[in-house]
Amino acid sequence: MKPLETCTVGIIGLGMMGGAFATALRTKEVMGAGGRILACDLDEESLGAAKNDGSIDEGFTAPELMLGQCDLVLLCINPSALLHFMEKWMSAFRPGALITDIAGIKSSIVAAMERTLREDLDFIPGHPMAGSEKAGYAHANRCNFHGKNYILTPLKRNKPENLAFLKDMIRRMGFSRITETTAEDHDRKIAFTSQLSHVIAAALIDCEPDQEITRFGGGSFEDLTRIAMLNVPMWTELFLENQQELVQRISQFQGSLDKLKGFIAEGSREALEENLRLVRERRGAMR
Amino acid sequence: MKPLETCTVGIIGLGMMGGAFATALRTKEVMGAGGRILACDLDEESLGAAKNDGSIDEGFTAPELMLGQCDLVLLCINPSALLHFMEKWMSAFRPGALITDIAGIKSSIVAAMERTLREDLDFIPGHPMAGSEKAGYAHANRCNFHGKNYILTPLKRNKPENLAFLKDMIRRMGFSRITETTAEDHDRKIAFTSQLSHVIAAALIDCEPDQEITRFGGGSFEDLTRIAMLNVPMWTELFLENQQELVQRISQFQGSLDKLKGFIAEGSREALEENLRLVRERRGAMR
Repeated sequence: MKPLETCTVGIIGLGMMGGAFATALRTKEVMGAGGRILACDLDEESLGAAKNDGSIDEGFTAPELMLGQCDLVLLCINPSALLHFMEKWMSAFRPGALITDIAGIKSSIVAAMERTLREDLDFIPGHPMAGSEKAGYAHANRCNFHGKNYILTPLKRNKPENLAFLKDMIRRMGFSRITETTAEDHDRKIAFTSQLSHVIAAALIDCEPDQEITRFGGGSFEDLTRIAMLNVPMWTELFLENQQELVQRISQFQGSLDKLKGFIAEGSREALEENLRLVRERRGAMR
Repeated sequence: MKPLETCTVGIIGLGMMGGAFATALRTKEVMGAGGRILACDLDEESLGAAKNDGSIDEGFTAPELMLGQCDLVLLCINPSALLHFMEKWMSAFRPGALITDIAGIKSSIVAAMERTLREDLDFIPGHPMAGSEKAGYAHANRCNFHGKNYILTPLKRNKPENLAFLKDMIRRMGFSRITETTAEDHDRKIAFTSQLSHVIAAALIDCEPDQEITRFGGGSFEDLTRIAMLNVPMWTELFLENQQELVQRISQFQGSLDKLKGFIAEGSREALEENLRLVRERRGAMR
């Protein structure tokens, strides 16, 4: 792969995350004024806005006009749209192109790419852990990559030099911790840290119809339920795509919740204190 | 009551919240250099630090040396310590003094004060919704009162002029929304917004022993579990003191969680989407 500063990068889907990538790529730490950043989206308004503010050089509504130019392609679309896109436009990619994605679920994508990816292409599945509850290019600036986690679930066939290239780009965009793992491990852990958290936030709001309840909020409730403002189609897809892992994680959480509820209901002061102490220690040890 | 700027205010318990009150009272919007701010605590180091940085005028380790001087007393201690303190030092308060507290549970305190408060004293129970997961005077500056909620659960006997005096002080300290309600209503709603949130955070940490799991965190998990770093004795007390309401709230939440889990397990896409959409709307309407 040639130096990133001389590459043509194509972003598929200029929503909040696609927009955040364009903006981060354009900073002087990454591509600066070098290379070209292209984007493809059905929403011409987003493309116009990004061209105006200089985060992309050119916008496209037809992938076939853009893909042939791109050394690197970032797929910033929902998992099901991604699989559909790869199937439909496989022949339009530039020979030897490097492709990556940002989908929050990896097993189905890794399986499909191991099976169907054109031989000359390299697809490195990735998941930047830097979202926000907002959607759309207008909110791209809400995504701060600095100090965030990035997970890669490489295919067996990925070229080491392409993996090194991508990791260098990720670090230069501000991410501080890159984890390489299998798609299965990713999906199992993400079911806990990300999907379960969203299910909990939704359940909390589901069980309280009083909109004035926030008069009694002191920060914790607001922190827990911020993510209840979720992108509904995307999260529905992520939940169902990772159904088995997520249901198991919900069950684990239900077990712990039932235990704590029992201590409270029985007035088991010592057991409750002991449990809260262990929880406090464990959370304190997490970095 | 005379103007706040000429009052002697006594803070019982110079921990994080007591310290935050001292600091807020000393700002020019509240008492400025007028009046006197005293504090009583067993920890002489905290008293020394607060005197050094000017947030209090004098520190005491013996309440009987301080209480007789105070026009206004702020009880910034745990609920059980509060009831014990009031019983033990009832005779030491200055005649006609106004007293308030910050405890996160109100029914037991209101009941005790309606029954046992000295006739010349006025006790207005309160709950500032502005904590942090930290404890101790050293963390007083982590408590930002600006724009936060404050709940008052007045006794039947409270003097209207004292209630007005206290609300004026609360607003000047930066709180933006003061809600007056009954102790029962407070405890029912706080069980949901505050206690249930803490139980959920604890259960989340309880069910995952992997300390490296934060490599897979993207913000939601960190937001949800920040409060798992809780002050263990205080929260044990709050949970058990509000046992009945809290257990009921946990059950309600379990119902909603079970429903969502069912949609996911059955792959009921439409029901799941519809539910997430309602949740999103409801959260969006909360202020």
